[in-house]
Amino acid sequence: MRKIAVLTSGGDAPGMNACIRAIVLTAEHFGVQIIGYKHGYNGLLDQEYLPLKARNVANIIQRGGTILRSARCSSFKTEESAKLAAKNLNALGIEALLIIGGDGSFRGACHLAKHWQGQVIGLPGTIDNDIYGTDATIGYHTAIETALDSIDKVRDTADAFERIFLVEVMGRHAGFIGLSAALASASDQVLVPELCTDLNTEVDNIVSHLQAAMNKRGNCSYIIVTAENLWPGGVTNLAQTLHEKTKLECRPVILGHVQRGGSPVSQDRLLATKMGAYAVEQAIAGKTNIMVAEQNNQLLCLPIETSWQQRKTLDPYLVKIQQEFFDITKQAEHVVNVKG
Amino acid sequence: MRKIAVLTSGGDAPGMNACIRAIVLTAEHFGVQIIGYKHGYNGLLDQEYLPLKARNVANIIQRGGTILRSARCSSFKTEESAKLAAKNLNALGIEALLIIGGDGSFRGACHLAKHWQGQVIGLPGTIDNDIYGTDATIGYHTAIETALDSIDKVRDTADAFERIFLVEVMGRHAGFIGLSAALASASDQVLVPELCTDLNTEVDNIVSHLQAAMNKRGNCSYIIVTAENLWPGGVTNLAQTLHEKTKLECRPVILGHVQRGGSPVSQDRLLATKMGAYAVEQAIAGKTNIMVAEQNNQLLCLPIETSWQQRKTLDPYLVKIQQEFFDITKQAEHVVNVKG
Amino acid sequence: MRKIAVLTSGGDAPGMNACIRAIVLTAEHFGVQIIGYKHGYNGLLDQEYLPLKARNVANIIQRGGTILRSARCSSFKTEESAKLAAKNLNALGIEALLIIGGDGSFRGACHLAKHWQGQVIGLPGTIDNDIYGTDATIGYHTAIETALDSIDKVRDTADAFERIFLVEVMGRHAGFIGLSAALASASDQVLVPELCTDLNTEVDNIVSHLQAAMNKRGNCSYIIVTAENLWPGGVTNLAQTLHEKTKLECRPVILGHVQRGGSPVSQDRLLATKMGAYAVEQAIAGKTNIMVAEQNNQLLCLPIETSWQQRKTLDPYLVKIQQEFFDITKQAEHVVNVKG
Amino acid sequence: MRKIAVLTSGGDAPGMNACIRAIVLTAEHFGVQIIGYKHGYNGLLDQEYLPLKARNVANIIQRGGTILRSARCSSFKTEESAKLAAKNLNALGIEALLIIGGDGSFRGACHLAKHWQGQVIGLPGTIDNDIYGTDATIGYHTAIETALDSIDKVRDTADAFERIFLVEVMGRHAGFIGLSAALASASDQVLVPELCTDLNTEVDNIVSHLQAAMNKRGNCSYIIVTAENLWPGGVTNLAQTLHEKTKLECRPVILGHVQRGGSPVSQDRLLATKMGAYAVEQAIAGKTNIMVAEQNNQLLCLPIETSWQQRKTLDPYLVKIQQEFFDITKQAEHVVNVKG
Repeated sequence: MRKIAVLTSGGDAPGMNACIRAIVLTAEHFGVQIIGYKHGYNGLLDQEYLPLKARNVANIIQRGGTILRSARCSSFKTEESAKLAAKNLNALGIEALLIIGGDGSFRGACHLAKHWQGQVIGLPGTIDNDIYGTDATIGYHTAIETALDSIDKVRDTADAFERIFLVEVMGRHAGFIGLSAALASASDQVLVPELCTDLNTEVDNIVSHLQAAMNKRGNCSYIIVTAENLWPGGVTNLAQTLHEKTKLECRPVILGHVQRGGSPVSQDRLLATKMGAYAVEQAIAGKTNIMVAEQNNQLLCLPIETSWQQRKTLDPYLVKIQQEFFDITKQAEHVVNVKG
Repeated sequence: MRKIAVLTSGGDAPGMNACIRAIVLTAEHFGVQIIGYKHGYNGLLDQEYLPLKARNVANIIQRGGTILRSARCSSFKTEESAKLAAKNLNALGIEALLIIGGDGSFRGACHLAKHWQGQVIGLPGTIDNDIYGTDATIGYHTAIETALDSIDKVRDTADAFERIFLVEVMGRHAGFIGLSAALASASDQVLVPELCTDLNTEVDNIVSHLQAAMNKRGNCSYIIVTAENLWPGGVTNLAQTLHEKTKLECRPVILGHVQRGGSPVSQDRLLATKMGAYAVEQAIAGKTNIMVAEQNNQLLCLPIETSWQQRKTLDPYLVKIQQEFFDITKQAEHVVNVKG
Repeated sequence: MRKIAVLTSGGDAPGMNACIRAIVLTAEHFGVQIIGYKHGYNGLLDQEYLPLKARNVANIIQRGGTILRSARCSSFKTEESAKLAAKNLNALGIEALLIIGGDGSFRGACHLAKHWQGQVIGLPGTIDNDIYGTDATIGYHTAIETALDSIDKVRDTADAFERIFLVEVMGRHAGFIGLSAALASASDQVLVPELCTDLNTEVDNIVSHLQAAMNKRGNCSYIIVTAENLWPGGVTNLAQTLHEKTKLECRPVILGHVQRGGSPVSQDRLLATKMGAYAVEQAIAGKTNIMVAEQNNQLLCLPIETSWQQRKTLDPYLVKIQQEFFDITKQAEHVVNVKG
Repeated sequence: MRKIAVLTSGGDAPGMNACIRAIVLTAEHFGVQIIGYKHGYNGLLDQEYLPLKARNVANIIQRGGTILRSARCSSFKTEESAKLAAKNLNALGIEALLIIGGDGSFRGACHLAKHWQGQVIGLPGTIDNDIYGTDATIGYHTAIETALDSIDKVRDTADAFERIFLVEVMGRHAGFIGLSAALASASDQVLVPELCTDLNTEVDNIVSHLQAAMNKRGNCSYIIVTAENLWPGGVTNLAQTLHEKTKLECRPVILGHVQRGGSPVSQDRLLATKMGAYAVEQAIAGKTNIMVAEQNNQLLCLPIETSWQQRKTLDPYLVKIQQEFFDITKQAEHVVNVKG
């Protein structure tokens, strides 16, 4: 193995830089050259790349974003684009391509593999944690922390005004950030796709829980964490609906893109570092069409298709305790504020 | 002076608890009793109050929100309510009432003063910093910090995607948070009421600045900080408008209520502590119908009406340098990312 | 099961409050009363306790420290003390005692169990992560984050002055915090008990690595993370030794007790919440002399003695890559600062 | 004015990069070239410099440390060195030199001015805030915040164990960080050079205050903030002394160099940005031998000697309330923890 290329694709995630650094340092350790393509797959097509040495990745482990930039590359679906990418990779003598991104980016890798003889290896990098086969993805833990930090702040105002807040967190079509952030912030309700069967039923449940809570606790703050893309019209509509049904003031908060940035927390720096080093080792070992994953604290390789062929499920124990904690019928005053 | 009451009213602000603590410790030092009314002026009407001792304010200096709760009290505008409040205050033997809040809360204090013989003293507590006569208000510095921390995170994604972001910050009808957060985060544009004459002209200016920037720098991230309540339909509409005129992707981010919470920064803890101690001294000195303020690092008293009789202006030097830094005609590539 | 008691013992750890909250809410859900003993085992002897209801644990999930206080109780080693504790527990009708603490506290639980018929259940709470049988302990992830945040700050000064820093982190006699913080902060060297055979050899290795690094990179910053209790005289002595051997300026930084405090990160809030809920379920199921643990994302019960009968080892893959990244003979300039 | 040079000297401070950025952007706005010397005055002697354009200062406003590096340059005291520096400056056609640093660095500037015809302008950059003539120095507010954040964490452990902690903060020979951090963290005592007459008397005062506090409050946490360089043998010795006199456990914590680093808070970013822009304007206006300062929110120029000719004093009102709050004879239980 003489030359490996790396790119970051799709939504950026904190830890991508730590992963790039680990790839470069490990490659240097084994005497392999590293080329970095910029702007995701676009860089492959536009031949926009730079050689990466240790000096280029110094002082980036703590940075959010990605020094290679990222992009969503819709044009990469065509046969022409895959062939062009293969031609460009061969022209540089690239033997393996490492893709840090989500399942969309992994599909792109498979598409490329149909027209390129080199090895393709995916590294799961997305805040959404919606990649099957790995316990966590690079960026997930930082996104939970950012959401949690914001919800902790919202609680201050919610308590001060004894007001209802709806906080929309990211997660695309998965509830991992939502459930973890809700449970870790002691929120009263969590609405995520995996747990929402029928939206009207959900609203009725929330309304009755809200009213039961107010009866038991007296006026109090009440925080509902919801996933994006779940509610028609978003949390602003849901807030309006709840207001109409309860006559209580409901304020929406949309955390948005803030959740994608920031310095990665230690868990993401370590996961990204381990996966980056391991991916280079697997490339040198000749592996291809694989995704690097971590299961039960063990690094392993899986067929890259695994990532989208099954849907990852929420931790059933977290779901169970979230529901038990807020089974209002069994409890009394559990969020009356001790500070008051 | 034997008995003083305190309440927090209007939007909560980080540092209100530090202020309550200072009021209680100073009063105890001078042998004066403190009563805390809950839920702002509502507590005055509903006689919802508690005696405050040092033990009640231990370990709150670092907490956001307010242990006394807050509320907006529209009903407090009537003569009946003011008379009832006066009756309740007299029944408890309260000689002075300290109100921590914004100018709306100060108007309530003046309304009360027409029907009550006791002393009323206002302490400026709002994240918006829109109170004339004091250099800063309690909560303002923490709100800037929270907004800044979020914009720093947004920049990571903006850089990674070389994308345009519109970030809406709070400030009600004032641009203090917006201008400070924009300048401190090296944002490319700031839209605040004090600097926006005509919205259509603004859009044209932004569009031409954007295009000039892209020409000079090549694709790059571009961040616009806007104040709330400025744009019809908010940043979501503005993002749509900019997209239509530039064909570039614009993403809106609304920081919202997150900016009201959080542990106060040192500046707010110190300002709140000084103002709380000073307000008790002024109460003991017999002052009434005043607002406590800080000008040029000196605490002083002003007629409470001052707070809303004039409009506080932005620091002209900050305005000047924000404009000079982004005078694209004079500059080249100033936000090409050094990391790339 | 009608009545369960809980106490926190030994060094406090972020997440202990989240654990107490989960114990109380779960117990309430199952109709079981909870008594909280204060000051660790001392509260058992002095009969210092309070009933815990949901209202007592509202708004504590985000707080560091422990609302039950903690203590190290040397006197609890005697037969008399165990018998007295048993007598007091029986007097209150306690059927199970939950101990949140480290292995020292678990030994105390076993000692008590010899003289008490009730159930004893340990929950691993310590920042040091030095408890065999569980992948992580409550507080560990927050301590890494705090250490990491400090090392990131030290790097700013180290880079500015191209200076050598020795940073001492906690961990008692284990290198978990040290290795994770060193790798996540891209530190140049890590000294932890598990990896240090002979101290003199270590010094020689560091000196030669330092000199090789300076030769390859030119002057640069250099950060060494060391565990406490490792070096005779601590980092101050080590800094002096390195200075004498290299004539380079070495600055010691001792992070100290700051690492024990702070709001728990999401991982600690979630682990503490899961373990607290699970411990109550196990108590109701009649389990005794067990420790609650998490292995490979699964909660389980282990004999409480397990916690100290074997020594937990460092992740060998983390050790391997830390060594590979800094194998200077294979590398060039890997920490020249890209910003310069 | 065609060419200006800038360097950072002495202890680095958060905000130095924001200041460099403002200098470069303002110079570019006025069509002036900027040269950056590296490693403080050493760069002047070694002719180590680089041209600075907007692109070089993008994305640094939020970074701690200094991209120009810093150093303490003892050799710069000689006449030879000043003459060599002048020769090198003239060789590059530098018309003005901006020095960002503390009073030691300003003395160096005056020394240079004796042998160089160009303009010298000082910008106060140090976390210690010990520069006369300016209300605040670049880096001061961030250092308070870092110290405060650490003390808030220490309090968690102090409360959990009801233990005494001594926290040593930076400040060289000034108590600005110490007093602000102590008051903002609700610490029980503060020991800073300005307020310590006789150390033995201080110890006796602390011991009696401690004992009075324990009597009034029962066991409780107790935090003493001390300035560095104050106590013979440092806080470790003081802790030992207090332990001997009170038989209570006292733990020392030395915050150390962590206080120099980190992303600057908004106040430092804004102050640094204003001072940087203003310094370039003053250079263009032909000013020399001046220090840029801010007094009462107004930027101004002072003779550079002013910075060390008088000693800046602590805010007397902060001193007064710190003493009143902890006048134990007047108070009861003021730090009993409300959470317990």
